[in-house]
Amino acid sequence: MEKREFLYEGKAKKLYGTDDPTQVVVEYKDHLTAFNAQKKATMGGKGRLNNLISAHLFEKLRDRGIPVHFERILDDVHQLVKKVVIFPLEVVVRNITTGSLCKRLGIREGMELPRPLVEFYYKEDALDDPLILEDHALLFGWATREELDTIKALALRVNDELREIFSGLGIILVDFKLEFGRDMEGNLLLADEISPDTCRFWDRSTGDRLDKDRFRKDLGDVLGAYEEIWRRLSGGAGR
Amino acid sequence: MEKREFLYEGKAKKLYGTDDPTQVVVEYKDHLTAFNAQKKATMGGKGRLNNLISAHLFEKLRDRGIPVHFERILDDVHQLVKKVVIFPLEVVVRNITTGSLCKRLGIREGMELPRPLVEFYYKEDALDDPLILEDHALLFGWATREELDTIKALALRVNDELREIFSGLGIILVDFKLEFGRDMEGNLLLADEISPDTCRFWDRSTGDRLDKDRFRKDLGDVLGAYEEIWRRLSGGAGR
Ligand SMILES: Nc1ncnc2c1ncn2[C@@H]1O[C@H](COP(=O)(O)OP(=O)(O)O)[C@@H](O)[C@H]1O
Ligand SMILES: Nc1ncnc2c1ncn2[C@@H]1O[C@H](COP(=O)(O)OP(=O)(O)O)[C@@H](O)[C@H]1O
Ligand SMILES: [Mg+2]
Ligand SMILES: [Mg+2]
Repeated sequence: MEKREFLYEGKAKKLYGTDDPTQVVVEYKDHLTAFNAQKKATMGGKGRLNNLISAHLFEKLRDRGIPVHFERILDDVHQLVKKVVIFPLEVVVRNITTGSLCKRLGIREGMELPRPLVEFYYKEDALDDPLILEDHALLFGWATREELDTIKALALRVNDELREIFSGLGIILVDFKLEFGRDMEGNLLLADEISPDTCRFWDRSTGDRLDKDRFRKDLGDVLGAYEEIWRRLSGGAGR
Repeated sequence: MEKREFLYEGKAKKLYGTDDPTQVVVEYKDHLTAFNAQKKATMGGKGRLNNLISAHLFEKLRDRGIPVHFERILDDVHQLVKKVVIFPLEVVVRNITTGSLCKRLGIREGMELPRPLVEFYYKEDALDDPLILEDHALLFGWATREELDTIKALALRVNDELREIFSGLGIILVDFKLEFGRDMEGNLLLADEISPDTCRFWDRSTGDRLDKDRFRKDLGDVLGAYEEIWRRLSGGAGR
């Protein structure tokens, strides 16, 4: 599979065409951004770790019956995926209160929710990805009722699977963001990435943050946390 | 009915006890605020107009079977209402896109929605009344599933009734904010006020704004607009 013409560059990844019009190559960059790109950095090796982690998790989810865009890993920073048209939605699943939820609603940090909470945000950097109601998505044509139902059900299944995977590694899955799209055959697929850039991981025994919050909150050793996630996922250490 | 001890002062009204513990007196103030009280003014006569308009509309809604807190008007600026515990929710119903909806979501102004949109905001000035999902209200204990369903259904019925009333007066009901509460007998009631402070009214033939947007946007003659609403409602002119 050849990496062909450059298609698009986002904050964390670049997309390239291939000789198959139904597939694209994703290049994971070393760039790290937070607060809608107001805070930026470059972290040598971050792209590789996110590529490895994301590929590994997409494989696990595919094995468990979740339809994913992921095809196969190509090298340290590249993976081959099905090309999709992304829904302009960021789908956030929360198990424990933290981050913007606590800030917006004056809620205490670190409370375990009685059931997972699914939130939709309108994916539009210029508007700072605002929280939306399902009715907003329906009325403004961002997804249909059926699509929202499918996406929500898939997001909750992904949560179940990821919680189980990470629980076995001594890691609490606090919350995460997913993106979905439709491929050229009309299949609704889980797309984008699943990595410490897009999830919150807390070490079960120490409470250590093993994700991008280390960058957001200047906790230090960001790369070490990403490495630790990869070490545990790849079997370097169990719990 | 005697106005007794002062209970609470909000941005637009004051509440007083009465000799009946199940009732309170609402005093409509001449104060006008916008953008969470960042913009303020006093407008002589505004309190009287809102008291008259609100009382009139609560009566009409009560006649049409909506459970309301309103008991009776007392004088120019006072009305007697059932005392309720207010849900910490601002319930917004929209028929036409404008205001914060357009700003937050980058939506064009003045589009008629294919069906009315109901939004819940968490009533908390310190947080700037953020938009919330029904799931947030459920998870954080601000209302139960049954309460949200009742409130939403009532809000849509109020919309139907108000649209009909204003349509007969040459006025388009663009959107409005409601508050609900529970009285001491456990009844869920429509409470607070319904006035040009809490609704957007557009004149059907001229497009003139006949509501607090004249204040928010410095369009001038705010009081004249409120007077016009009262003139039409009270039969000073039909259409
Ligand atoms: N399979 C796919 N097909 C097409 N686009 C995709 C696919 N997976 C992810 N994308 C998109 O690739 C873009 C680049 O990713 P990223 O750098 O994370 O962007 P962003 O700055 O929006 O976070 C995003 O717009 C994302 O939605
Ligand atoms: N029937 C009622 N019983 C008790 N409180 C009420 C009732 N109707 C309205 N309220 C409350 O009265 C307060 C005063 O109103 P207002 O000045 O509009 O306040 P705000 O500054 O919150 O907009 C509000 O908190 C409102 O929720
Ligand atoms: Mg991204
Ligand atoms: Mg008020």
